[in-house]
Amino acid sequence: MTLDLTWLHAPVAAPDQAAAAAARARQASLTKPAGSLGRLEAAAIRLAALQGVERPGLESVHIYVFAGDHGVAGEGVSAFPQAVTGQMVANFAAGGAAICVLAKAIGATLEVVDLGTASGPHASAGVRRVGLGPGTADLAQGPAMTLEQLTAALAEGRGAVHRARAGGTDLFIAGDMGIANTTAASALACALLGRPAVDLTGPGTGLDAAGVAHKAAIIDRALALHAGASADPLEALRRLGGFEIAAMAGAYVACAQLALPALVDGFIAGCAALCAERLRPGTGDWLLFAHRSAEPGHGLVLAALGAEPLLSLDMRLGEGTGAAVAVPVLRLACALHGGMATFAEAGVAGAVEGARVGGV
Amino acid sequence: MTLDLTWLHAPVAAPDQAAAAAARARQASLTKPAGSLGRLEAAAIRLAALQGVERPGLESVHIYVFAGDHGVAGEGVSAFPQAVTGQMVANFAAGGAAICVLAKAIGATLEVVDLGTASGPHASAGVRRVGLGPGTADLAQGPAMTLEQLTAALAEGRGAVHRARAGGTDLFIAGDMGIANTTAASALACALLGRPAVDLTGPGTGLDAAGVAHKAAIIDRALALHAGASADPLEALRRLGGFEIAAMAGAYVACAQLALPALVDGFIAGCAALCAERLRPGTGDWLLFAHRSAEPGHGLVLAALGAEPLLSLDMRLGEGTGAAVAVPVLRLACALHGGMATFAEAGVAGAVEGARVGGV
Repeated sequence: MTLDLTWLHAPVAAPDQAAAAAARARQASLTKPAGSLGRLEAAAIRLAALQGVERPGLESVHIYVFAGDHGVAGEGVSAFPQAVTGQMVANFAAGGAAICVLAKAIGATLEVVDLGTASGPHASAGVRRVGLGPGTADLAQGPAMTLEQLTAALAEGRGAVHRARAGGTDLFIAGDMGIANTTAASALACALLGRPAVDLTGPGTGLDAAGVAHKAAIIDRALALHAGASADPLEALRRLGGFEIAAMAGAYVACAQLALPALVDGFIAGCAALCAERLRPGTGDWLLFAHRSAEPGHGLVLAALGAEPLLSLDMRLGEGTGAAVAVPVLRLACALHGGMATFAEAGVAGAVEGARVGGV
Repeated sequence: MTLDLTWLHAPVAAPDQAAAAAARARQASLTKPAGSLGRLEAAAIRLAALQGVERPGLESVHIYVFAGDHGVAGEGVSAFPQAVTGQMVANFAAGGAAICVLAKAIGATLEVVDLGTASGPHASAGVRRVGLGPGTADLAQGPAMTLEQLTAALAEGRGAVHRARAGGTDLFIAGDMGIANTTAASALACALLGRPAVDLTGPGTGLDAAGVAHKAAIIDRALALHAGASADPLEALRRLGGFEIAAMAGAYVACAQLALPALVDGFIAGCAALCAERLRPGTGDWLLFAHRSAEPGHGLVLAALGAEPLLSLDMRLGEGTGAAVAVPVLRLACALHGGMATFAEAGVAGAVEGARVGGV
């Protein structure tokens, strides 16, 4: 593997403001009170800008689930044993996991990328095996990744985006699987935002209050250990991130470079998106945010990105599930935008200015 | 037309608690951290109870849009002229309105019921014409409806539910169209909740602050005029409601009597649902709430119903559009519930109790 990180510095694309203006004008002409479709109007206009067309569409959706294990799992920070990461990779391959059911239901293409799990590479059909190692090193004891591992993980994310683009996708979704990855994501977000662990640490898969306190103590220890690296997002990602988090960050940067809209899932994806924006400012222009996770730290991450997710369903599963659930809503936004009649076409009268101030 | 209101007093069905328990047990067995699908889990369990099966489904969805004009439009309470109600009925028939696009996209059956519009009955194919009159009377001057009109409107709602049931529906949705109907709905909700107009009056289709103040003054005048009727939901509905609001209220009661789950749209539908629960306590057990409207009074109505809608997208269009947008989300909840592998099926380990309190 080559140590090529130069692609991270390639310019990001600019959203198409002319397409956005055309979409905005079309919205104003449709047979409904102005603004009455709320966030669906804004979503259609945003997608128009990102797809460079007046009437966007989301026919083809590609979902990539990135799996990796975390050395910090050995610190007892998760409610589930580390073996579950590999077991879930097999469950992805067998079609039994939540994201498999959702991908099938929404007609999305699903690919699973096993970046490195403690149980070793999986021979399952349909899983791309990368093999960066049996998981990251314990970030509370030292850097989570070597530069080689980080570089390869970032490149895997970029590679997925290129495969999605080659497959003619309209929307890229990244999902995550990795026992203890809320610990890594929280630690990374703390470093990038200059916050103590308590602000960004939550129950993950189901810790109780004592478990959350223990997890926060581990994260604070890690933040102290890696204090010098916080200013550099790449080094913070190497020291505190994980294989799947790095792959997602790399994917988001690549989406922005290839002018491909990405729909960001929940907390792990949000932390990766924050890192991506720090790695390559402007990346955020290409990100749509699907849902507000039940993980309490998500709010700070979203605020730092200026993001207001479409849904808030108390989901906290990862795998890209929250993004998949938002896809039909975005598709309906596109259908309304493209398919409704205009006032002129339907012969419907517009708003009466006089009535708006109380006149008859 | 007969003056038969006795059906309103027929008992409502009871949700199936055994099916709910089976669904709850199934949720706990699926390969995900307990609770991590958030509101999607609760929705699947709720639908299981309402459909009386462990694994609910929403293949067949029926949407009925009830249209009617309002005499109070003459008081200058809407941003749009009254003619728009009839024009929109034609737009529904032609397939150009938002609800038409959504119904087609989600594969729902759509029926439009023209209860009585100022522009007269519409000959459009696919519109059921009822002809209760050219609209209600001005509720700020006297009762909006005669008892005959109210009875017929309630029965129209019930009839739609019976047609939906005969059509094999899994989910009933009612939508509304009627210029000035936020005025009627707000007035009705004020009467039922004992609130002044200011608490429940909003911009509707797009009034400015002066327009909202004028609208609130009209509603307060109506509340004073009909003060004696507030304690009786049927009489409050007759005096302050509208054809489409009464039809929706009747429909919700009929859904509860026929054990058919209904997905409630936004502000108008919410006020009709509140009235339905007052007309026949227990009706609310059969109602799911799709979205939180941008209309500011919706929050009080939802709170009175103990309802927490699934979506919050700043929509305020009516027609059943918010409910239609929530359908794919509910379908995904059902797909996950029915299609995910269990821990046992997938050979995935469950949560480790020791790790939950910080142990390794």
